[in-house]
Amino acid sequence: MTLAPLNPALGATFSPPVMEARRWLSGVTFPADRPLMNVSQAAPVDPPPEGLRRAIADAALTRPEAHLYGPVLGNADLREAVAHQFSQAYGGTVHHDQVAITQGCNQAFCAAMATIAGQGDQVILPTPWYFNHKMWLDMAGVQTLPLPCRAGMLPDPEEARALITPRTRAIVLVTPNNPSGAEYPAELVGRFFRLAQDHGLALILDETYRDFDSRTAAPHDLLMQPDWDRTLIQLYSFSKAYRLTGHRVGAMVASVDRMAQVEKFLDTVAICPSQLGQIGAVWGMENLSQWLAGERAEILARRAATEAAMGALPGWKLKSVGAYFAWIEHPFAEGSAALARRMVRDIGVLALPGSMFTPIDDPAGDRHLRLAFANVDVAGIAQLAQRLGQLAP
Amino acid sequence: MTLAPLNPALGATFSPPVMEARRWLSGVTFPADRPLMNVSQAAPVDPPPEGLRRAIADAALTRPEAHLYGPVLGNADLREAVAHQFSQAYGGTVHHDQVAITQGCNQAFCAAMATIAGQGDQVILPTPWYFNHKMWLDMAGVQTLPLPCRAGMLPDPEEARALITPRTRAIVLVTPNNPSGAEYPAELVGRFFRLAQDHGLALILDETYRDFDSRTAAPHDLLMQPDWDRTLIQLYSFSKAYRLTGHRVGAMVASVDRMAQVEKFLDTVAICPSQLGQIGAVWGMENLSQWLAGERAEILARRAATEAAMGALPGWKLKSVGAYFAWIEHPFAEGSAALARRMVRDIGVLALPGSMFTPIDDPAGDRHLRLAFANVDVAGIAQLAQRLGQLAP
Repeated sequence: MTLAPLNPALGATFSPPVMEARRWLSGVTFPADRPLMNVSQAAPVDPPPEGLRRAIADAALTRPEAHLYGPVLGNADLREAVAHQFSQAYGGTVHHDQVAITQGCNQAFCAAMATIAGQGDQVILPTPWYFNHKMWLDMAGVQTLPLPCRAGMLPDPEEARALITPRTRAIVLVTPNNPSGAEYPAELVGRFFRLAQDHGLALILDETYRDFDSRTAAPHDLLMQPDWDRTLIQLYSFSKAYRLTGHRVGAMVASVDRMAQVEKFLDTVAICPSQLGQIGAVWGMENLSQWLAGERAEILARRAATEAAMGALPGWKLKSVGAYFAWIEHPFAEGSAALARRMVRDIGVLALPGSMFTPIDDPAGDRHLRLAFANVDVAGIAQLAQRLGQLAP
Repeated sequence: MTLAPLNPALGATFSPPVMEARRWLSGVTFPADRPLMNVSQAAPVDPPPEGLRRAIADAALTRPEAHLYGPVLGNADLREAVAHQFSQAYGGTVHHDQVAITQGCNQAFCAAMATIAGQGDQVILPTPWYFNHKMWLDMAGVQTLPLPCRAGMLPDPEEARALITPRTRAIVLVTPNNPSGAEYPAELVGRFFRLAQDHGLALILDETYRDFDSRTAAPHDLLMQPDWDRTLIQLYSFSKAYRLTGHRVGAMVASVDRMAQVEKFLDTVAICPSQLGQIGAVWGMENLSQWLAGERAEILARRAATEAAMGALPGWKLKSVGAYFAWIEHPFAEGSAALARRMVRDIGVLALPGSMFTPIDDPAGDRHLRLAFANVDVAGIAQLAQRLGQLAP
């Protein structure tokens, strides 16, 4: 059966990579002494701490408004908490009406981008890119201008400048990066900000993995710039910090004028974010900073273990690592998609192939894999490297 | 400050009507003996029954997966329950893989429409329309072809046929209707289905208010048609039936091929629906059918009260009523937008003006108001009519 009517922009984009990878598992059995290691999706495997679970449960029982519609742009207390925390963490001042709460950070990206670019416009994405960003642009009829990352998996603002045309509307940076893990230096982020300013573009900064950044200073100083909100749109996720992936809570920081447009999109696509998710996020911000510091330390230990283990693995190259992810070059002749499927069968490891993060004609995709190392503890990371070492050529 | 860059398609659509109406309340004080009557939004004012609240709270405490990512198209148990219930309620057979769960029914509409129509395509919407449908089409660059409702607030398939061009992709019906409340006869829905079939269009049937339909038979027989899923996309909401508006849970029934495209959209915009919302919806379907029958009876009583009260009100005309809404013609010279704001100040009633549901150049918008009568009990409805009767010309 041929599907009709079909929006060609939908037909043209690819299927969700995480769901496709999950299908590779079907029919494969994993022996008890070598269970599946799933490093495909950045997803906490444990639920949130008990206090947060209890806060959600209590709200479900005792707060009627936890079940009813809230404001489109999110609850006032959570918007206020985000504004306060951003102001503290980055310097500068973010007001609550410069904050929107969304059903996850993916939705924050879609909402922001919908206000910026439509059919025939262009957006610059460093490659490898986060696939859902590319999918949204495809579905909206927006042309993606790929900006290949260079040494340290960092993009070059001067290369970006050369891509800009009169139809270019935005530059998107993800830092710490998905899929490469690279932490973009504050100075580099600042250069992209000025580039965007110079050309009247929006700069979207997706900091989903911010809480696991290895640096202790603020990752950029853009919120201290005058008129930052004419250019910058910053995105955040509560999912990774507080293990709230199943509640779908994210945030966007942008100008009040932008929010009036964002509200149109969110009203239509969401009406409001989940109330219990918002209640959980507020509770997490108020009570889990110590706990989150411990989580960060654990993930930094896993990062160090990943660096050590991959460094000792002949033929493989760790191109970059940070927050949740490592971007690794494999030593085999075959493309990454074939290799990733073979890894499921031969060594019980599910990782996403680089080709899921790159343009079809980019040979870098075939040479790399993304490992969501943060899903696995330090002992598991050693075992993961051992299994990779056992792969036949 | 002028917003730039701005997607002109976003700039061109209107602001969320419910949020705009809420702003009319600011600065107005309501005396204790005449508190605000809010009939603006179809929103249950009470939380779900205690059993459902407890089911959600228990899951939050004891089921780790209630906090973690689930499948993009929704949890298997809820998809199965919807498939089973639809098969029973409509005859015919709906399989679980023909069901998707979404973050509310608005999102189901956006996801369905994204797979159908893009920039430059056309979609037929009966007027008055549901404003979020119009907003999505505007934001996607899809042209809306308005189809004015006639007697009984019913649209005419032959008038629709005359609107169809080679760029037309779909017809959207909402039944029971928002904003008019009209229940579309099964025979009429069947004629629209055949019209869509004849022209290779999709028929989107939004049944958000189905549970409060006054009819006892199935509202249509389309799911018994061979190849129904080549044409029909049916939408449903758990929000009104189980008072889950704050959890954002809706559903779509469509072909498996359509679902592969829907999955791309939902992965990018949502990743997955809220787990606790899905758990609540399953619990509701399994345990609340008796309770829901009582809710329906209460709402039908409110409907009867609305018919009686409006019928006795000189100068006003009840054009149609059903499920949650009444569509009423007012007797004043001023336009509905001005009238609605005056009603807040003069009689403490918040209702949405007809102009929020119609094309700018449609005079019917100025002559009507939508009342979400189901928000108010029978005594309140008598009082509502009394207040309307007190409005000065």
